[in-house]
Amino acid sequence: MTLMTQAGLPKTRTLAISSEEKTQRVERVREVLEDLGFDALVLFHPERIGYLTNVIFVSTERPMALVVPARGDLGILIPRLEQEHVKKAPEIADIEVYPEYPGGRQHPIMHLRDLLNRKGLVGRRLATDNDGYGDVNGYLGPTLSAINSEGAVQVAREIVDKLRQVKSEAELALIRESCTWGNLAHRLLQKHMAIGRTEIEVGLQATSEAILIMLDTLGSAYASQSRGFRNPPVSASFIAGANTALPHGMRRGQGLKPGDAIITGASSDIGGYHSELERTMIVGEPSAEFAKYFDAMLSIQQAGFRAIRPGRTCADVEADVQREVAQLGFTELTRHHTGHGIGLEGHEPPFLDLGDETELEPGMVFSIEPGLYVPGVAGFRHSDTAIVTEHGVEIATYYPRDLASLIV
Amino acid sequence: MTLMTQAGLPKTRTLAISSEEKTQRVERVREVLEDLGFDALVLFHPERIGYLTNVIFVSTERPMALVVPARGDLGILIPRLEQEHVKKAPEIADIEVYPEYPGGRQHPIMHLRDLLNRKGLVGRRLATDNDGYGDVNGYLGPTLSAINSEGAVQVAREIVDKLRQVKSEAELALIRESCTWGNLAHRLLQKHMAIGRTEIEVGLQATSEAILIMLDTLGSAYASQSRGFRNPPVSASFIAGANTALPHGMRRGQGLKPGDAIITGASSDIGGYHSELERTMIVGEPSAEFAKYFDAMLSIQQAGFRAIRPGRTCADVEADVQREVAQLGFTELTRHHTGHGIGLEGHEPPFLDLGDETELEPGMVFSIEPGLYVPGVAGFRHSDTAIVTEHGVEIATYYPRDLASLIV
Repeated sequence: MTLMTQAGLPKTRTLAISSEEKTQRVERVREVLEDLGFDALVLFHPERIGYLTNVIFVSTERPMALVVPARGDLGILIPRLEQEHVKKAPEIADIEVYPEYPGGRQHPIMHLRDLLNRKGLVGRRLATDNDGYGDVNGYLGPTLSAINSEGAVQVAREIVDKLRQVKSEAELALIRESCTWGNLAHRLLQKHMAIGRTEIEVGLQATSEAILIMLDTLGSAYASQSRGFRNPPVSASFIAGANTALPHGMRRGQGLKPGDAIITGASSDIGGYHSELERTMIVGEPSAEFAKYFDAMLSIQQAGFRAIRPGRTCADVEADVQREVAQLGFTELTRHHTGHGIGLEGHEPPFLDLGDETELEPGMVFSIEPGLYVPGVAGFRHSDTAIVTEHGVEIATYYPRDLASLIV
Repeated sequence: MTLMTQAGLPKTRTLAISSEEKTQRVERVREVLEDLGFDALVLFHPERIGYLTNVIFVSTERPMALVVPARGDLGILIPRLEQEHVKKAPEIADIEVYPEYPGGRQHPIMHLRDLLNRKGLVGRRLATDNDGYGDVNGYLGPTLSAINSEGAVQVAREIVDKLRQVKSEAELALIRESCTWGNLAHRLLQKHMAIGRTEIEVGLQATSEAILIMLDTLGSAYASQSRGFRNPPVSASFIAGANTALPHGMRRGQGLKPGDAIITGASSDIGGYHSELERTMIVGEPSAEFAKYFDAMLSIQQAGFRAIRPGRTCADVEADVQREVAQLGFTELTRHHTGHGIGLEGHEPPFLDLGDETELEPGMVFSIEPGLYVPGVAGFRHSDTAIVTEHGVEIATYYPRDLASLIV
């Protein structure tokens, strides 16, 4: 499959958001800035910068910042170290490079003031996602308020985050692709589970195999944005035994043994987008007690799926799930809400929680993962990735959910 | 080797900081608070909380906070989800649990106010590492200043970070152990490099093998604090080809070919502590040009090693390295400073940089990694982990640095 670029040259298919879509996002941000009376938005968080531009980076002690003026060219603050990377983002006309952090004569963040000054934005009304660069690797520096003391600064991270909540068709395609590869990794994980094998060895084997198969399959269409193994292209892991009764249990490091409960997790990073797939499993024949809680968990998750449709709120979904849990008599066994948004981050707003009144819209994506945690027995939680559609929900993860399919 | 616990029972050797040492750290923080006239320190950053307690966690949208009063019991704010984990940290007497984020009637951070109130700290003078919980996974909430508007709040993250800069013998032992396992991973990486093999497949193989060998070797002495593969116990990876000319180059995804330059990286997480090992390598016989820059890089790194001894400053080290680079005529080929602190974080203060006047003290740990980046040719950078000693420097990483040892 080939697409044509604006310049008329054939363009190879890539699993990434197009520059055109990112430009449209910037235009929508500018409209919101105009509506709210801001002269510019200053962003420090890498996912928000990557949402609007082709600049992909990991936060370190060296600050970076994107400046989106209501009118005028995009500007960016970067360390010299990243200069060559940012050349790959031609949509950013105005690049302010500082030598190093902490650097010599001038604090790096004063270069952000220089950039704002050059754009006529010092003394103006600025929105930002944070009042200054964050607490990363010991970074210290003045706030944005301090370097724009002549003007006004208001934290308004929802300007970008609200756009991020409703995914475009291109974003949904990346999330579905992520589900596909998460499914493969999970299948390999289940295949390699065996009595005596540890969480680590099975997880490493499934993850390694899935990465190599995925990269061979997708080839140059897969645009890896990662440098090391902090964000593997695809991965799967699990915890086993009594630790599953903790919602965020640690690996035990012993081999699997008959009767062990298992909670898995698999995901994949496709063009920066994620999905979530988790399954509760059992080694050998399940006890009647295990099957009872497993069935309850399934019915609670089904209540979550049924609760989703446009016009209802996140709080409505959580209320439905809590009602189902109460009818089963297991309220005391819950430890967390029904789910969270997924996209550029594995967890992002909105949240399927009583405290979140966000109205569901087609294109929103959530994990649906209400869990039951039975002390001394096991934890019971499936997590699926669900897309809000015009009339209800599309469950994008498709790994089997029934107990018979999940016995090792 | 067995140690005795306070209760007199034999204690198994673990590669972790003892509770006794963490208690001593808390006492030192209390002394600083008294000196500076603060009534308490409120910490939000997981590495600072983990430095003072046995609570190890990853930041998410669910806020956590540790309260260290100048006098009185430690307190902690946690989501219900983490309740069972925190029971493993008996040094924290006062645990405030909130149901969920965003939660129902009360914002989670108002539970922090409840905790402060219970300890008589509302309206008092509070130090903090951040004025409120950070911008993580879309978290939104009031600042600490807002919930302590009757009192005063001052960002003073150096209270803990200055203690962290000088490592104890126990910390240095963990960092040396990290160097050992990073060395193994790097040896396996080099062993598996071959013409036609990709960065990904070689990195995965070396990492997987190193993890399994390390866990078999250390057994129960190794306390894994990680849930998934975000922080593997040990890992190694590399980039190859022209991308090495970027300080933070991306993986290319093609197989190795004759003449490729390589820059590697290996590390290991031992009890939460890290090390850094990076090597510049070459596939096949190096050209005269490659050897010239390689030799220059070696002499620049040696200048870095020579520059380190107690009483000099971080800026002195950088100045010495810059002088050596200038004498070689390669100033235009540098992109970053000499190195950074290493410990609980892979990068942490202080920085070997002209802008950092911190005086070197025995027990400080740095990466020494001045690099040369030759556009269109390659990047040249070794990184070693160096410990400041009474009289100079101990280079804790011991992988060969000479060109002959680094040819694939």
